[in-house]
Amino acid sequence: MPVKKSDLWKLDKNMKLKGNSLKGIKWLDPKERPFVVSGFGWFEKEKIFRRLPVKPQWKVADAVNSLANCTSGAQIRFQTNSKRVAIRVLLSGVAGMHHMPATGVGGFDCYIGAPGKKKYLGTTVFHHAKDSYEYLFFTINKRDTKNITLNFPLYMGVKAVLVGVDTGSKVLPPLPYKNDKKVIIYGTSITQGGCASRPGMAFTNILSRRFNYEFINLGFSGNGRGEPELAKLILEIDNPGCFILDYEANCGSFEQFEKSLPEFISILRSKYAKIPILVITKVRYATESISDSLSKRLTRLKFQKKLIACLKKKGDKNISLLDASNLLGKDFHECSVDGGHPTDLGFMRMANGIEPVLRKILGKLWIR
Amino acid sequence: MPVKKSDLWKLDKNMKLKGNSLKGIKWLDPKERPFVVSGFGWFEKEKIFRRLPVKPQWKVADAVNSLANCTSGAQIRFQTNSKRVAIRVLLSGVAGMHHMPATGVGGFDCYIGAPGKKKYLGTTVFHHAKDSYEYLFFTINKRDTKNITLNFPLYMGVKAVLVGVDTGSKVLPPLPYKNDKKVIIYGTSITQGGCASRPGMAFTNILSRRFNYEFINLGFSGNGRGEPELAKLILEIDNPGCFILDYEANCGSFEQFEKSLPEFISILRSKYAKIPILVITKVRYATESISDSLSKRLTRLKFQKKLIACLKKKGDKNISLLDASNLLGKDFHECSVDGGHPTDLGFMRMANGIEPVLRKILGKLWIR
Repeated sequence: MPVKKSDLWKLDKNMKLKGNSLKGIKWLDPKERPFVVSGFGWFEKEKIFRRLPVKPQWKVADAVNSLANCTSGAQIRFQTNSKRVAIRVLLSGVAGMHHMPATGVGGFDCYIGAPGKKKYLGTTVFHHAKDSYEYLFFTINKRDTKNITLNFPLYMGVKAVLVGVDTGSKVLPPLPYKNDKKVIIYGTSITQGGCASRPGMAFTNILSRRFNYEFINLGFSGNGRGEPELAKLILEIDNPGCFILDYEANCGSFEQFEKSLPEFISILRSKYAKIPILVITKVRYATESISDSLSKRLTRLKFQKKLIACLKKKGDKNISLLDASNLLGKDFHECSVDGGHPTDLGFMRMANGIEPVLRKILGKLWIR
Repeated sequence: MPVKKSDLWKLDKNMKLKGNSLKGIKWLDPKERPFVVSGFGWFEKEKIFRRLPVKPQWKVADAVNSLANCTSGAQIRFQTNSKRVAIRVLLSGVAGMHHMPATGVGGFDCYIGAPGKKKYLGTTVFHHAKDSYEYLFFTINKRDTKNITLNFPLYMGVKAVLVGVDTGSKVLPPLPYKNDKKVIIYGTSITQGGCASRPGMAFTNILSRRFNYEFINLGFSGNGRGEPELAKLILEIDNPGCFILDYEANCGSFEQFEKSLPEFISILRSKYAKIPILVITKVRYATESISDSLSKRLTRLKFQKKLIACLKKKGDKNISLLDASNLLGKDFHECSVDGGHPTDLGFMRMANGIEPVLRKILGKLWIR
């Protein structure tokens, strides 16, 4: 039978795609100063919106190479006295996930305020079947200087992006991060932000806001498998402050995981003997009670506990484990859209649980 | 430039649309006993998946009439000893919202377990651009009897649905609700469930699970404006146990609200002098700090407090107000996808805040 487009939701004027007036807006290139693009490990050298080098010197799987174009975890930061802030975006394709809205897949969102006090203001509204859009985030009738953070899309490449401000307004460098150390997190689709409703709700972005640290998101949906090549690439990133490994859900067979995790850690340690490493185990799937995923998870949990204890015993004082078994709470089954991928509810709980553990680790960095 | 379909997310095998084996499944009509379809006020008479009568005896706006076809808040309930439960669905159209995934717009989700202990098991996976799908919710290798709840889509009409179980398995009536009283909630897009990731996370469905009561969701996206015709239609629903009015966000001008709310309540009271009425004020928008929505909200809040106090004073002991100002918490700005419509995070917090208030009200019903 013919597929009919449902217009039911269009009956709500609050849900309509608004044609915003962008008259008097000047468009600026966020790749240039005073804008700062953060969250891409190789951006300073290559000026490309990409999470790995354009040509990695260590061969990576084709899927990882493609997923590196997803802009998850990256941010455009600046200050401005403009009354309006807008964005113009050209995506690498159109959103088409069944369990994640276009706002999370291909949208930007906007936060305003000084570090530690950032408040969410809005998300780009665009037709889900289009690959380009313009959007006015806000109009504020005050000429004072505002600190702005725009979070990049989680599951899409961004070919081009321009930031719009009022003609005649000033743009200044953003308020700085706590320091120049980066939190580098390697993991899965959950790490990448699947399935947050909008970019700012990926747990790495929530934590970046809370700590005022630059986070480098190297979550590769379905493909963060602990390949040694990725560990070697991570070593190329400047100023690491902490490494987080969160790839258990994609680890492959237990035998592969047993092999890859010690090797991954060992490669990181070959260059950085003392930079903190935090291993986070897998959060619970909703279907643990009816599948064999529980026993598999517990086997891997035991292995990880033993491995980290063993490494500590051998003298590594800067490695630790976060057992994620209870991170999603007693009603963990409510926290995902599909049994596995957290919603904003799941991501908020993950951030809340990871925060105190990471606070201890990053606290040491602040003292230095 | 040409729009290219992005395949980046297809690189994750966990996110692929799986072709489930449905061999040996028999398809049953949930409109017939022992299945119970709940959440539709006129279903027993009309056997139609619709939230208002097919031909309302009071004239309603065209938009409301269309939105009544969205199946928000409805459930298919049954018990079975089948090892597998599947579903076959024909929607009224295809999902196309920019800020809500297809799983919430047009998907079903599945809970298993006795009332008070229901656990989420899975959501229908289907191509976002299709209007029909089949999906196997689970395979459990036990022949014991399971209590199943399937939540209907939030922003779509359902033309047809069949439930699939193993050939040779038994289907029994569901475990019953606490009693036959219905919680009838009239409101906005937020009431309707915009923008939950999946049906079970609309706050009315969360509360229905927690209380084991039938909830009738009369949230009309953008169109719950307190029209007297809707109050008159609500009077037609059998066995009301509690009325909740939650339409402030769509109320129109303050003058309209000032007129409509007392009238709406008065119509309900014309038939039901003692059935509890709970008025819930609007949750906070993210942009309150930069727009005039805060002062407008506070004006309406003051009016509602005064109105309810006045009605109480006049002798109505069964009316109450829930001030929703703090329902979303201190970081209320994080709880929506677009500044207004809650995500699962926002809905969970709404349910948590409404629960104790409603528990007092429904507690009285249990005693009777």
